[in-house]
Amino acid sequence: MGTSVLFGSEVRVVNVGLDLFAEAVRAQDHPVAEVEWRPPAGGDAALVRLLVADAETRDRVDAANRETMTRMFQARPVWVDVRKAGDVVPDIPDRTLLHSGPARPFERMCGPHRRAAAWAAVFEGWAPDPESAALALANGGIKLEPANAHSVVIPMAGVISPSMAVHVVTDGATGRTAYSPINEGRERTIWNGNPDRSTLDRLAWFRDELAGSLSAALRQTGGVDLFGLFSQSLQMGDEMHARLPATTALLLRSTVGPMLEAGVPAPAVAHAVRFLESNSLFGLTVVMAGCKVAADTGHGVPWSSVVTGMSRNGLDFALRVGGLGERWVTAPAPPMDKAIYYSGYDSGDGAGDIGDSAILEVVGLGGMAIAAAPTVAAFVGGSVDDQIAATDDLREITVAAHPTFTVPQLGFAGTPAGIDVRRVVETGIVPFIDTGAVHDHDPNVGQIGAGIALAPIEVFQAALIELGKAWGR
Amino acid sequence: MGTSVLFGSEVRVVNVGLDLFAEAVRAQDHPVAEVEWRPPAGGDAALVRLLVADAETRDRVDAANRETMTRMFQARPVWVDVRKAGDVVPDIPDRTLLHSGPARPFERMCGPHRRAAAWAAVFEGWAPDPESAALALANGGIKLEPANAHSVVIPMAGVISPSMAVHVVTDGATGRTAYSPINEGRERTIWNGNPDRSTLDRLAWFRDELAGSLSAALRQTGGVDLFGLFSQSLQMGDEMHARLPATTALLLRSTVGPMLEAGVPAPAVAHAVRFLESNSLFGLTVVMAGCKVAADTGHGVPWSSVVTGMSRNGLDFALRVGGLGERWVTAPAPPMDKAIYYSGYDSGDGAGDIGDSAILEVVGLGGMAIAAAPTVAAFVGGSVDDQIAATDDLREITVAAHPTFTVPQLGFAGTPAGIDVRRVVETGIVPFIDTGAVHDHDPNVGQIGAGIALAPIEVFQAALIELGKAWGR
Repeated sequence: MGTSVLFGSEVRVVNVGLDLFAEAVRAQDHPVAEVEWRPPAGGDAALVRLLVADAETRDRVDAANRETMTRMFQARPVWVDVRKAGDVVPDIPDRTLLHSGPARPFERMCGPHRRAAAWAAVFEGWAPDPESAALALANGGIKLEPANAHSVVIPMAGVISPSMAVHVVTDGATGRTAYSPINEGRERTIWNGNPDRSTLDRLAWFRDELAGSLSAALRQTGGVDLFGLFSQSLQMGDEMHARLPATTALLLRSTVGPMLEAGVPAPAVAHAVRFLESNSLFGLTVVMAGCKVAADTGHGVPWSSVVTGMSRNGLDFALRVGGLGERWVTAPAPPMDKAIYYSGYDSGDGAGDIGDSAILEVVGLGGMAIAAAPTVAAFVGGSVDDQIAATDDLREITVAAHPTFTVPQLGFAGTPAGIDVRRVVETGIVPFIDTGAVHDHDPNVGQIGAGIALAPIEVFQAALIELGKAWGR
Repeated sequence: MGTSVLFGSEVRVVNVGLDLFAEAVRAQDHPVAEVEWRPPAGGDAALVRLLVADAETRDRVDAANRETMTRMFQARPVWVDVRKAGDVVPDIPDRTLLHSGPARPFERMCGPHRRAAAWAAVFEGWAPDPESAALALANGGIKLEPANAHSVVIPMAGVISPSMAVHVVTDGATGRTAYSPINEGRERTIWNGNPDRSTLDRLAWFRDELAGSLSAALRQTGGVDLFGLFSQSLQMGDEMHARLPATTALLLRSTVGPMLEAGVPAPAVAHAVRFLESNSLFGLTVVMAGCKVAADTGHGVPWSSVVTGMSRNGLDFALRVGGLGERWVTAPAPPMDKAIYYSGYDSGDGAGDIGDSAILEVVGLGGMAIAAAPTVAAFVGGSVDDQIAATDDLREITVAAHPTFTVPQLGFAGTPAGIDVRRVVETGIVPFIDTGAVHDHDPNVGQIGAGIALAPIEVFQAALIELGKAWGR
């Protein structure tokens, strides 16, 4: 973060090679960024031409980006229900599983995704065991589709099948709706790519009891206003991607009273409470569905160069841009080489960056809100100052400050929101995602670390070229 | 905070009157403290003599202070029960109410205390209405005792009667126990000195239902380890005196599952959940009882100059010191002139600093942990830097950093803990308490603001003189 050339409005002392001068300035406590000077867009002539587009194009794109953010900020996602995916998610074909990230043939998916899909098929009763499920997935007897195409977002290596329970999050004004699975926690799970029989028992409990308990609570209370709740979470030390104890506690607080008042039997309420109490990541998928609703509300403004989706499958990183319709641009997913690994593991053991959870960074949470969560400071450097500096860099590539997601540690300024493809290509500053790493080939391990993944610059460069075509240039 | 002369080990540029020099230093980004120079202990010869006591005395006091903190830090308060005060609090005489702060004759108590006591007597059935209760309180038919004398701590203008429900908090190792009332919230209440009939209904519900529900949960779960929970709260933006949403949510999360598993009827659980959900201050009195246990565990080391209690009644500020036995030293309570008042009110409307809640600052929470709560930043200045500077000043007058109460914004350093009477007198830096202000004479208003109260220097000076006597000097 600290070594990017900044072309923005902020004035800093930039030092190009004169170490003694840098020492002298540093001694006076001014911020110094030592950088190798690089030309905009890495000097690529075609990209530079797109960046210095004619004034009319620039104005149209700027106006489209403002409209994108106005729409995105107007979204008011409400958590309204928990239902079986097959009953609510539109247009899932027969015998089809939805997975995080962009599409891939089954045999060429990363290890955790293949294991997740095979066990999901077993859960659905489409195969007696994961081995035969894998054969059916390979020969097309069971099909796969990207979740994003169905307004579903799934973290990590997650896969959903029609009878799995999903959160239903709706914007009251537009009716726009997104879905996400119930987070399974930290044990043997689909989402971390290390499922076993205990995983299926938990998924069955989600489907047969927990979904109904939460659904009753949400119908009793009329739903939970998510962005109001997230605003509180930011005051309570959650950036909501790597850290969610406050968010989860607030969601628990919002549902347990209504659950009881709705007449859910006490043992079912107790079981629900115990699960939320012991799984601080429960909130993650609720947050993701809320962010997906907002991103979809902002998507679709012609000429917009604002990112409206980021999605990874461990091998590919896919970008959706406001003015590019449903065409996603892809590049290789970055390795998780900036993660902090649990003892005994390193980045060579892990799959690449994976999951749809980067929808948080699209909307202004997660990495964009890192300053709210001093406890995950180590991801970007240990101090509050490091987090503020990282946030300042992110302001260089975003077009707005979120009006609702304000952070005490930033003097109650809003988080950076609305990643502008042009600014990323120009500055070379890429958004970072604070996420987890999962084991690639060992079926028993699951998560092996956490840290930041840097979005690949190549995907933004490719998107800019696509935008140029859309702009008729 | 910023204008105190510092005698500690920290090196700062201190500027005595040369404004141009200060400008020049400031331009180079070094911290500058502009102060009027004052001699130690305000130059009082008797006090200075006590401060520069012989080396043997100094060593004995230092050793006693270390022992005080070792004991205080070893305490592990556990919230174990909620019971009627009369059934558990030791030695309450007949027809006696316990009140916050040091003792005063009824007619000379502040307005909110008189109203609270009168309504508490009505709640107990000792008088048919507050007017006749006030007569009985004035003529001795109903008696008053300070809560602290019974290991009870009560916030603001609170009063408890024998049938009111109290939290029971115990240190497992020593059996030492403290008690506090259930926090009534923000409506018409005893603790804010604006009770009415609705207050008595709420207190009856506490006694007849909520206490039993919480008690069942705590017996089911074996109690809640409070300092472990407080450590989490500090990571979630609570300093626990003015701000407690995280603490309250964590306490809710710890009790609702066990409540259901213990077989508490669903309507009673729902009522409890709704109350905790809507009253983010619920945690305050639980925190107070936990701190009281720790302070009492540290109290009683001969020669100790560490503060083990601070308690106010709106008119007097009382100090308990580790090496002074049960003798409390008092001085006039400070006016709440640094509070932020609700529209239409000012410090002239309010009672002085009031309540036993300053037990938090004694142990290292509240004002000592202000850096953990950016949302209450305005109390000491708006920025994170202001809070860190305030904390640095408090380190000048404390003898330790709390091993459990660590704060992300302080680089995970522990909060200042263990106020040394000698250091306060020497430096002139006084601890501050982040607390509320209540209306003095209008019986309908209650809280009118919040902010910091500076403990009066006079009470520390008086305590030092008492210590000198105890040391045989």
